Amino acid sequence: MRDRLSIDPAHSSAQLLQRLRDTVPLTHCITNSVVTNFTANALLAIGASPAMVDIPGEAGMFAGIAGGLLVNLGTPAQEQREAAREAAVGAKAAGTPWVLDPVAAGVLPVRTAVALELASMGPTAIRGNASEILAVEGSGAGGRGVDASDSIESVAPAAVDLAQRTGAVVAVSGAVDLITDGRRIARIANGTPLLTLVTGGGCALGALIAAFLGAARDSGCDAFEAVVAAHVVYEVAAELAASPAGQSTAGRTPAVGPGTFAVRLIDALHAVTAADVSARAQVRLEDAPALAEVSA
Amino acid sequence: MRDRLSIDPAHSSAQLLQRLRDTVPLTHCITNSVVTNFTANALLAIGASPAMVDIPGEAGMFAGIAGGLLVNLGTPAQEQREAAREAAVGAKAAGTPWVLDPVAAGVLPVRTAVALELASMGPTAIRGNASEILAVEGSGAGGRGVDASDSIESVAPAAVDLAQRTGAVVAVSGAVDLITDGRRIARIANGTPLLTLVTGGGCALGALIAAFLGAARDSGCDAFEAVVAAHVVYEVAAELAASPAGQSTAGRTPAVGPGTFAVRLIDALHAVTAADVSARAQVRLEDAPALAEVSA
Amino acid sequence: MRDRLSIDPAHSSAQLLQRLRDTVPLTHCITNSVVTNFTANALLAIGASPAMVDIPGEAGMFAGIAGGLLVNLGTPAQEQREAAREAAVGAKAAGTPWVLDPVAAGVLPVRTAVALELASMGPTAIRGNASEILAVEGSGAGGRGVDASDSIESVAPAAVDLAQRTGAVVAVSGAVDLITDGRRIARIANGTPLLTLVTGGGCALGALIAAFLGAARDSGCDAFEAVVAAHVVYEVAAELAASPAGQSTAGRTPAVGPGTFAVRLIDALHAVTAADVSARAQVRLEDAPALAEVSA
Repeated sequence: MRDRLSIDPAHSSAQLLQRLRDTVPLTHCITNSVVTNFTANALLAIGASPAMVDIPGEAGMFAGIAGGLLVNLGTPAQEQREAAREAAVGAKAAGTPWVLDPVAAGVLPVRTAVALELASMGPTAIRGNASEILAVEGSGAGGRGVDASDSIESVAPAAVDLAQRTGAVVAVSGAVDLITDGRRIARIANGTPLLTLVTGGGCALGALIAAFLGAARDSGCDAFEAVVAAHVVYEVAAELAASPAGQSTAGRTPAVGPGTFAVRLIDALHAVTAADVSARAQVRLEDAPALAEVSA
Repeated sequence: MRDRLSIDPAHSSAQLLQRLRDTVPLTHCITNSVVTNFTANALLAIGASPAMVDIPGEAGMFAGIAGGLLVNLGTPAQEQREAAREAAVGAKAAGTPWVLDPVAAGVLPVRTAVALELASMGPTAIRGNASEILAVEGSGAGGRGVDASDSIESVAPAAVDLAQRTGAVVAVSGAVDLITDGRRIARIANGTPLLTLVTGGGCALGALIAAFLGAARDSGCDAFEAVVAAHVVYEVAAELAASPAGQSTAGRTPAVGPGTFAVRLIDALHAVTAADVSARAQVRLEDAPALAEVSA
Repeated sequence: MRDRLSIDPAHSSAQLLQRLRDTVPLTHCITNSVVTNFTANALLAIGASPAMVDIPGEAGMFAGIAGGLLVNLGTPAQEQREAAREAAVGAKAAGTPWVLDPVAAGVLPVRTAVALELASMGPTAIRGNASEILAVEGSGAGGRGVDASDSIESVAPAAVDLAQRTGAVVAVSGAVDLITDGRRIARIANGTPLLTLVTGGGCALGALIAAFLGAARDSGCDAFEAVVAAHVVYEVAAELAASPAGQSTAGRTPAVGPGTFAVRLIDALHAVTAADVSARAQVRLEDAPALAEVSA
């Protein structure tokens, strides 16, 4: 058994970016009506092949031939909900890795029920903000209402628990992202506050996770590394987009407006190199059990 | 009772912009599939928090917790129509201000019926072009078909009548916008023809109205002032976006193409200041009865 | 009977662009959720008037008053499928020209059935990539599965056959586009590889075809010339967008990223002139029978 912390996330992220561009994973998206266009352009820019297939009768079989699948519950109309279930079944049967993004779970009843159902169907990864992860984790939150102000750190034990119970890699988005497979925790400090000013910034990341999971198949990298890679690459590209001259933007006022930033982000996803990723990745790794002891 | 004309729209618009940014109103959108992304980005840029919640079983309860609600009938699929009714009921019960944007009412039968139904459910504001307002006003138009070439001025009596019958603030978009609460009329001369070259330019304005109505709650400003403020702020931002050097663009050829303008508009909604609004607002106020006499 | 090859596509394309801007054809779109915004902005930029009307009860009557109609099957939810059938009937009854874009036909079962049904309902034009055209042609492909790597040239006989059987102008998109009405073939060498990095690049072209078909009514130009014109104008605009200084970009590395390119494409659709089109059009014409002999 290899050392849990022996992975080099900067290296594996750069490697998986290159592999994604070599293999052009077909990335099946079932996502919300606000972000379809931005999501598809982000996937094309990074080097994947997007396809929005979100009706019953098609989603199941397509999940079987896709390289990776995203199920995002942002605007879950009835046909999309049926398609999502069908796709989850199809992905499982075919071994296609898939991502659940339970947008606004815990706040809105219809999608919360669907999110809990889908979380039990074997997603490869679950991505959300702290409140959404708490809502999907459910019993761990002890029935209290979700709280949009929950911090990343306070949700860490729930994220580890959710990962251990579902077998999914769980990713919690925030100023510092937390990613865990129940054994390991990665904290990623890349990114820019401008991402919070573009609608679908997180939704597009969910799609990139699906693409990186597709790229990681038969690569020697596991799902944890793929989810970390998606975050690192996306957020390094965001840093490049936020900063006209390419310097770090941490802690400084953005030099571009949010409209311009969204356009530059697509450019940067296309331009970002494996060398950029290696040079800029800010990932900290630890064992999940250590955290469990601290929080007990 | 305060003087009907005593409001200072440049001042109240600037004030409400600041208040919106301080309070970040949760803005519930039920809108058409063409403009969801642009609308959400416009709301984020101005400082509001957008949420697209457009399925039955969720829209009603969410309208109750939102700061403001937009119901736009641009692509009214069946679930959206049900969600819109549910949201109107939920908004009324909770006192959430809401905006009806009856896109293409009068031309297309399904949405015309829904628009008339929703108009009778107590919207806080109704926004449309001249033809749409005539269609919703209905009896006032005397059964004649709507006419896309109806001028703003010719529709003024119908707008006043609609406002008086429904209790809504009625906003008619055009080169000069007309806004009335049935007692007062405001005419707003800000803006740029480039707005007509960006799809969803009017739809995003509808969403901003919902956000400004949310910001105006408990502010001392009324719904009329909030609707005026949304127009002034949006159109001042559009002027800044249309003009690379920031000069007035009135009557001159735009210096930017429509693709670039749309991006710059998002930037400008983020950058526009209360001082910009105070300095550039072009609002003319009068009593509605004066108009009624003139047009009688 | 006029000489089949006597048309001057550079001239007629420039002429139809001018006519489109003079007549502002109302362009009815039933299209997928990924590209609605980009499509509407492309139509506005070129000078048409877009309207997304995609629900049953409205689509049929609206197809009767529109100048041109697009039916794109990218995300064919149930209401859209019903609306598409209704619109095809309405268009036929009113003589409105219409375009079928059978996105992913041949790969996904629900849309493939709908595409075959719609193809038999008298579309004025059918636009797709090689695999999609083979799938719609159906019997010609002899039951073998579609192959995304099918080259434009290998699909030419099937395109001619499909045009002859349906009466539609058939357009096959690729590095060189092939357009045929069953008698003539045009090959168009304009464009830029950047178009493949923007989602909806082909879908927006489908909408422009509908607009150009609308502009061509009563113009003396036929549907074949209108479909050629839409391709030439769109791809000349794309060349201008891809090249900051306006030079040809053929065979060189693009100077702009895909996000910036998409914005510049909208700008260029607005700015492109009839003179640009005349000067840059790269169209080669031949008789279809000649091809049939070669391939027999």
